[in-house]
Amino acid sequence: MSQTKQYNVAVVGATGAVGQKMIETLADRDFPIKSLKLLSSSRSAGKKIKYKGEEITVEEATPESFEGIDIALFSAGGSISKKLAPEAVKRGAVVVDNTSAYRMDPEVPLVVPEVNKEDIKEHKGIIANPNCSTIQMVAALEPIKKAFGLKRIIVSTYQAVSGSGTEAIDELREQSQSFLDGEDMKAEILPVKGDKKHFPIAFNALPQIDTFEENGYTFEEMKMINETKKIMHAEDLSVSATCVRLPIFTSHAESVYIETEKDGLSVKDLHQSLTNAPGIVLEDDPATQTYPTPLSAAEKREVFVGRVRKDLDQPNGFHLWVVSDNLLKGAAWNSVQIAEQLVANDWL
Amino acid sequence: MSQTKQYNVAVVGATGAVGQKMIETLADRDFPIKSLKLLSSSRSAGKKIKYKGEEITVEEATPESFEGIDIALFSAGGSISKKLAPEAVKRGAVVVDNTSAYRMDPEVPLVVPEVNKEDIKEHKGIIANPNCSTIQMVAALEPIKKAFGLKRIIVSTYQAVSGSGTEAIDELREQSQSFLDGEDMKAEILPVKGDKKHFPIAFNALPQIDTFEENGYTFEEMKMINETKKIMHAEDLSVSATCVRLPIFTSHAESVYIETEKDGLSVKDLHQSLTNAPGIVLEDDPATQTYPTPLSAAEKREVFVGRVRKDLDQPNGFHLWVVSDNLLKGAAWNSVQIAEQLVANDWL
Repeated sequence: MSQTKQYNVAVVGATGAVGQKMIETLADRDFPIKSLKLLSSSRSAGKKIKYKGEEITVEEATPESFEGIDIALFSAGGSISKKLAPEAVKRGAVVVDNTSAYRMDPEVPLVVPEVNKEDIKEHKGIIANPNCSTIQMVAALEPIKKAFGLKRIIVSTYQAVSGSGTEAIDELREQSQSFLDGEDMKAEILPVKGDKKHFPIAFNALPQIDTFEENGYTFEEMKMINETKKIMHAEDLSVSATCVRLPIFTSHAESVYIETEKDGLSVKDLHQSLTNAPGIVLEDDPATQTYPTPLSAAEKREVFVGRVRKDLDQPNGFHLWVVSDNLLKGAAWNSVQIAEQLVANDWL
Repeated sequence: MSQTKQYNVAVVGATGAVGQKMIETLADRDFPIKSLKLLSSSRSAGKKIKYKGEEITVEEATPESFEGIDIALFSAGGSISKKLAPEAVKRGAVVVDNTSAYRMDPEVPLVVPEVNKEDIKEHKGIIANPNCSTIQMVAALEPIKKAFGLKRIIVSTYQAVSGSGTEAIDELREQSQSFLDGEDMKAEILPVKGDKKHFPIAFNALPQIDTFEENGYTFEEMKMINETKKIMHAEDLSVSATCVRLPIFTSHAESVYIETEKDGLSVKDLHQSLTNAPGIVLEDDPATQTYPTPLSAAEKREVFVGRVRKDLDQPNGFHLWVVSDNLLKGAAWNSVQIAEQLVANDWL
């Protein structure tokens, strides 16, 4: 970026899995930072984190922390955002919030820059970063929707444990070793730390991400359904989701079924709409076993699409396999992208 | 079983992952065995395997091996079945074949006893055991189809490595340990031993099971599509599948979307059709986080169903999560079930 203006930036939740990726991404992108403040709970305050070679001491986040801050990236859990984001806004900061606290608030834009960048300018101080599994799906489907219209989405997810934070990463590592050693696996975090029961994730699949809603869907599934409609400005789009946690450290994968508005399309038409689409990499050639996997997508910012197939029975039906690093495009990178749009367009 | 008649039984592929489960299941079920012959390739001949405390030496499978055999359970790969199943039949044996060699042959019944037991009696010497991922799905959907009719199935699978045999099991174990030790992972077997490229399965997801067909689907996906229609006698049923291999040792899971013929159904109606259905266990209570997982279903013969939800947009749409031990109901147990039907009904 060739900005001359520089900004006072704060990262809230700096010691978490996403917070650390935010700091890395700000450095990788050479974001125009005047000062960087790293904030956390009192528990993690005092830790030191490197930014471009310089050690920064993490401070406890308080309302006063946001004095003089221009942009605050929040990723410390919904309750922290509910408490501190308004305090940051009151002090003149623009908040990019990576929790579910404000996503469905009609006053708050919910943004994936490849899809609805223009919504950013309607912000009243807070811009919400969508749920990780939603972001990669809408980024992959937007070029198809734009070219051919979209009637329907049915998605089944294959989600990494890092979406549940560093404790879940440690749990997968420890359980895997226990299993390989023939020992019992200790389950204390997944599927949901605060829920009543815990099950082993190593060499297993858990069809629960986040808590259950009254209607039998999990909150993660409802996020995919509701957020997709909001981001795509498509209230009539039919969306359904089944979300599954897997023994994968990084990158979510998704088996996505869609029905297009336009008739008579071929796989080639879909390929054309995805080629050169912003942020999308098409990796799709069955003849050479070319398709994305969680490991191949890890540490990359793009959304990877493969296995595009025409449904054999439904004329407008297609299947896709969508993979992306859940901590980058699913969280840190999408947040930094929003911040880049804020400064590039002077939308602060 | 309270049979007085006893049978000469052969297991072909006795040293493989499925073969071993067949021998265990025959013992567990107290199958009326007069003599048990264990057959394999020349490479594994000479190994000793225990059956009910008695050591049996594995012999190389030849056409002559089947002299005097009443029932032969085959699970040694399609090319062995193509070569030796007709030789077994010629010598008076009835073959239950757990490979894809004869499944779509119109002369060969393809059977999941809970669905189409009666087809067994049409056999001309060979009965085919369906693909593992197909078996558990049709077993779970048959009670719903019978009660309410079925228009459509879209399935995304979460499949265990044991479906690719003992080498794949070893590969997952070794790669997992390498990854945990911070070493490079060696990939030589998965996704398909005989295919050109291999990718790590540990902490990953591979959207390829079996080789690719001309139409962009894998052979595994086409098996699910074609076999489901044949077993359910439902040529007009719309079926589509995306098959994914995961770092799980045992049990396949499936995210299944269906549309019923009958209108106005509730989750309770589906629950009622599944309760007491043969071979099915309903484990579905979001309030108590009750749902099946690959680990909870392992080593059990039943098909477990949970996460039954009504689609929020499609009036006749429902979602289910179906889990079963791929080596038991998906292979060994279904084959032994067919053999039990053969002797119980005198259909030999």
